[in-house]
Amino acid sequence: MSRPQAPEPALDVQGDPPSGEGDEDTADGTQHSHRMLSFSDALLSIIATVMILPVTHTELSPQQQFDKSVQKLLATRIAVYLMTFLIVTVAWAAHTRLFQVVGKIDDTLALLNLACMMTITFLPFTFSLMVAFPAAPLGIFLFCTCVIAIGVVQALIVVYAFRFPHLLNPQIGRSAHRRLHRKHILHIVLRGPALCFLAAVFSLFFYPVSYLLLATVIVLPYVSKAAGWCRDRLRGPPEPPAHSVEFFTFDLQEPLSKERVEAFSDGVYAIVATLLILDICSDNVPDAKDVAERFHGSLVAALSEFGPQFLAYFGSFATVGLLWFAHHSLFLHVRKATQCMGLLNTLSLAFVGGLPLAYQQTSAFARRPHDELERVRVSCAIVFFASVFQFAMWTTALLREAETLRPSARFGGREHAFMFAKLALYPCASLLAFAATCFLSRFSTAIFHLMQIAVPFAFLLLRLLVRLGLALLRALRGLAPPARPTEGDPQAPLLPAPC
Amino acid sequence: MSRPQAPEPALDVQGDPPSGEGDEDTADGTQHSHRMLSFSDALLSIIATVMILPVTHTELSPQQQFDKSVQKLLATRIAVYLMTFLIVTVAWAAHTRLFQVVGKIDDTLALLNLACMMTITFLPFTFSLMVAFPAAPLGIFLFCTCVIAIGVVQALIVVYAFRFPHLLNPQIGRSAHRRLHRKHILHIVLRGPALCFLAAVFSLFFYPVSYLLLATVIVLPYVSKAAGWCRDRLRGPPEPPAHSVEFFTFDLQEPLSKERVEAFSDGVYAIVATLLILDICSDNVPDAKDVAERFHGSLVAALSEFGPQFLAYFGSFATVGLLWFAHHSLFLHVRKATQCMGLLNTLSLAFVGGLPLAYQQTSAFARRPHDELERVRVSCAIVFFASVFQFAMWTTALLREAETLRPSARFGGREHAFMFAKLALYPCASLLAFAATCFLSRFSTAIFHLMQIAVPFAFLLLRLLVRLGLALLRALRGLAPPARPTEGDPQAPLLPAPC
Repeated sequence: MSRPQAPEPALDVQGDPPSGEGDEDTADGTQHSHRMLSFSDALLSIIATVMILPVTHTELSPQQQFDKSVQKLLATRIAVYLMTFLIVTVAWAAHTRLFQVVGKIDDTLALLNLACMMTITFLPFTFSLMVAFPAAPLGIFLFCTCVIAIGVVQALIVVYAFRFPHLLNPQIGRSAHRRLHRKHILHIVLRGPALCFLAAVFSLFFYPVSYLLLATVIVLPYVSKAAGWCRDRLRGPPEPPAHSVEFFTFDLQEPLSKERVEAFSDGVYAIVATLLILDICSDNVPDAKDVAERFHGSLVAALSEFGPQFLAYFGSFATVGLLWFAHHSLFLHVRKATQCMGLLNTLSLAFVGGLPLAYQQTSAFARRPHDELERVRVSCAIVFFASVFQFAMWTTALLREAETLRPSARFGGREHAFMFAKLALYPCASLLAFAATCFLSRFSTAIFHLMQIAVPFAFLLLRLLVRLGLALLRALRGLAPPARPTEGDPQAPLLPAPC
Repeated sequence: MSRPQAPEPALDVQGDPPSGEGDEDTADGTQHSHRMLSFSDALLSIIATVMILPVTHTELSPQQQFDKSVQKLLATRIAVYLMTFLIVTVAWAAHTRLFQVVGKIDDTLALLNLACMMTITFLPFTFSLMVAFPAAPLGIFLFCTCVIAIGVVQALIVVYAFRFPHLLNPQIGRSAHRRLHRKHILHIVLRGPALCFLAAVFSLFFYPVSYLLLATVIVLPYVSKAAGWCRDRLRGPPEPPAHSVEFFTFDLQEPLSKERVEAFSDGVYAIVATLLILDICSDNVPDAKDVAERFHGSLVAALSEFGPQFLAYFGSFATVGLLWFAHHSLFLHVRKATQCMGLLNTLSLAFVGGLPLAYQQTSAFARRPHDELERVRVSCAIVFFASVFQFAMWTTALLREAETLRPSARFGGREHAFMFAKLALYPCASLLAFAATCFLSRFSTAIFHLMQIAVPFAFLLLRLLVRLGLALLRALRGLAPPARPTEGDPQAPLLPAPC
C-alpha cells in the first residue's frame, strides 16, 4: 500500500532551539511537548477533583436525620477529597518539573507519559480504599505500589531523555555536567517512591509507621515551601548557590511554569462545571409514567417541581464561571507565578472543587427544608475561601510586584485599583450573604441565589464604579478634575456596551 | 486601601498585531483570547460528550432480559447522545468562526462568552426532554429558546466588537467594508436562531413542522459540507469569488483553526477518560459491612470480585489514551484542517465518546455472563469506527497533501509509511478481535482484553517493524541495502529505548 521510503534527507544539528514552523522537528521524530502537556494537565486536574463526587452523592433518605453517623461519613469523605487533591497536586508539580527538564518528546516518551497518567488515575481509588478500611494494610500497600510505579515510569522518562540529549531542555542538553544533572533529577524523582517503598514494607507488619511515612511524603513539600517563604520574609532571600545557573531549570525553588498553572486551573474549573452539568442532565428529566400519573400529563407542572434546582444550577454555574473569570483576569497581569502563589492557587482550587457540594447543598433543601440555614452558610463559606485565596495570591504577588506583575497592575498602575476591586468582590459578597443569613433567617435561600445572580452584573459595572470612586477621591483631594472619556476615545471600550 | 490611579500613560495605536510581551495589551483593557478560547473548547467538548452517561447508566435488573423495550430505550438514548454531539459541534464551529473575527477580548466580551457557554450547557437537558416527551411541545419550545438565546448573545458579541474595532481581527478591523462584514456575520450568526424562532412558534400549534425546521438547522451544515466536497471532487474547486480576500477569515468554506480543533478533541478525550475514572472510583470501593459479613473481613477476597472490572478499566483507559496518541501524531503532521477533515474528526470523536459504553458493556458482563459475544462485538465496532474515521482523515489529507500536510508525512516522506501503520493499527486490531469472536466464541472476553493491553506494545514496536518491512521491500526490489542506524546516529532515538 505505502510507497517505499525515499532516501532520508540530511539531518540538522540536534538540540537546536525550536524553529518557528516545526517541520524539521517532526522530521526526526521529536515533537514539541505542548499539546501532550495540556492533555496531561487536563487529566491531572480531573483526577484531583473527581473525589468530590462521593461527597456530593452521599445519599440521605428523607426521614433520616442529619445525625452524628452521617456527619462522620461526610467528614471522612471530605478528608479523602482534600488529601487526594493535595497528593495529585504534588504529582502534578513533579510532572511540571520533569517536563521543564525534558523539552521535547518522541513517541516513546509520549507513551511513557500515558502510562504515568494511567497509574495516577488509580490513586484516588487506592486512597478511598485506605480511608474506608484504615486498619487493613491492603489500602496502604496498593497506594504505595501506585506511587512506586509512577516513580519508576518517571525515572524511565529521565533515563531515556538523558540517553538522547536532543530531547532535553537545550540548557541542560548542552551542559558539561549532564551526568550530575541526571543524578540530581533522579534523586528528586525517586525520593517519594523510596519513602513509599519503606511504607509498603511496614504496612505488612506494623501499619501506623506507614501512615507516618505517607504523611511525610504528602505534607513535606508544602511545609518546606511555607517554611522557606517565612524564612525569606524574615531574613531576606538566601545567597544563590554557586551552581545556580546550572540548576536553574530544575531547581525546586524555581517558579512553576505559568502556562501549566493556568492549564491545570482551567481543568479544575472545567471539571467542576461538568459535575454540575452531569447532575442537572441526569437527575432532572421527569419520568414519563410519573408525569402521566401524578401531573395528569402536564410536563410544565412536572418541571416546575425542579424549579429551585434549576435556579441553584444557574447560580452555581455563574459562580464557577466568574471565579474562573477572576482567576483569568489575575493571571493576565501575572508575569510569573512564585512558589507561594502556586500554593495559594492550589488551596483556592481545592475550594473551587468543593462548589458542586455547595450546589448539592442549596438544591437539596428544596426537597428537605430543615437545616436550610446551615446549608447556605456552608455554601457561602466555600465560595468565600475559594475567592479569598485568589485575593491572597494577588496580595502575595504585590509583595514582589517588580518580579511577578506586569507594570499596569502594580501599585499606581492603571489597572491596579480595578484588579483590587475585581478580586475583592466575591469575598465581600459571600461575607455579606453569610451575615445576611444571620439577620434574615427566613429568606436565606432567596438571598443566596440573588447574590449569585447579581454578581455578574456587579462585574460589568465594576469598572464604572471604580472609576467613579477614584474620580471622587481625586475631587476630594482637590486635584485637577479627571479627563472624561469621550466618543472614539481608546478608553471607551472599557465601559460596558450600551447595546 | 488602594492608592489613587496614576496619570494614564499615552496609549499606543489600536488594532496592532499582538506584541510579544503583551504588556501593552493588558494596559488598555484588551486581552488575547487564547486562554478564554481553550476554556470554552473544554466546556463545549464536555457538553457534547456528557449525554453518553444516561446510555451507560441504563440500569438493568439481573433477572431482566435484554428485550425489545430495553433495546428501544437504549436506542433512544444513543440517538439523544449522537444528536446532542452534532448540535454542540455545530455550536462549537460557529463559536470558532465568531472568534476568528473577534481577535481580542475585554472584560465585557469575556462575560458575554461565559453567558453563551451557560446557555449552551442547557442544550443537552432540553434535548433529552424533547426525546423523553416527543409529543409535548414544551421540549421543542425550550430547545428553541436556548438556541435563540445563544444567537442573541453571539449577535451582541458581534455588535460590541464592531463598535470597538481594535477588538476585531486586524484584517477586518482595518477594512473599509466593515459595515458589510458586520451584516454578513450577523446574517450567519442569526440564521439558525431565526429558523428556531419559527420552530418555536410552530411548536405551539403544530409540532411536526418544528421537528422539520430543527432537522434543517442541525443537519444542513453537514449536508452542505459533504455536498460541497463531492462537487469539488467532481468538478474541481470553484472559482474564488471577487471579494475572497475580504471575506477570507470568516468564509464558511475556510478551514477551521487547527489549534481549536486540537483543543476540542483533547477535551473529548479527557472527558471520556473522566467518565471511566468516575465509574471506577464511585462503584468499586466495597462496603465495610459487606466485607465483614460476606468475605469474613478479607478485603483481598472482596476486591478480587471486582477483578474483571479493573481489567476492563485499564483496557479502556489504554484504548482512549492510544486513540488520543494516534490523533496527536496525526495532527503533528497536519498543517491545516480542511472542512472535510473537520467533519471526519467530529464523527471519530462521536465514537470516542461512545467508549464509556464499551467499557460498561465489557465490565457489566462480569456480572451477567449472557450476551457476552454481542457486547464484545459492540465494543469492537465502537473502537473500529472511532479509529477508522481517524484513518479516513489521514487519507483525505493525503488527497490535498501539499496544502494540508507537512513535507515529512507526504507520499515518499520519511514519516509517511510509519504514520500509515500507526493509524491502521487500531482499525486492523479491532477487526481482528471482531473476527476472532466469531471463531472462538468461548474466549471472547479474554481476546478483547488481550487486544487492548497488547496494542501499546504494538505502538512501541511499530517503528521497528515498519523499518524492517521497508528494508525487506527494498531488498526484494534489488536496491542498495539501507544504511543501518549506528551508535550516536540521530535516528537512534526513533527506536524504543533499551532501558
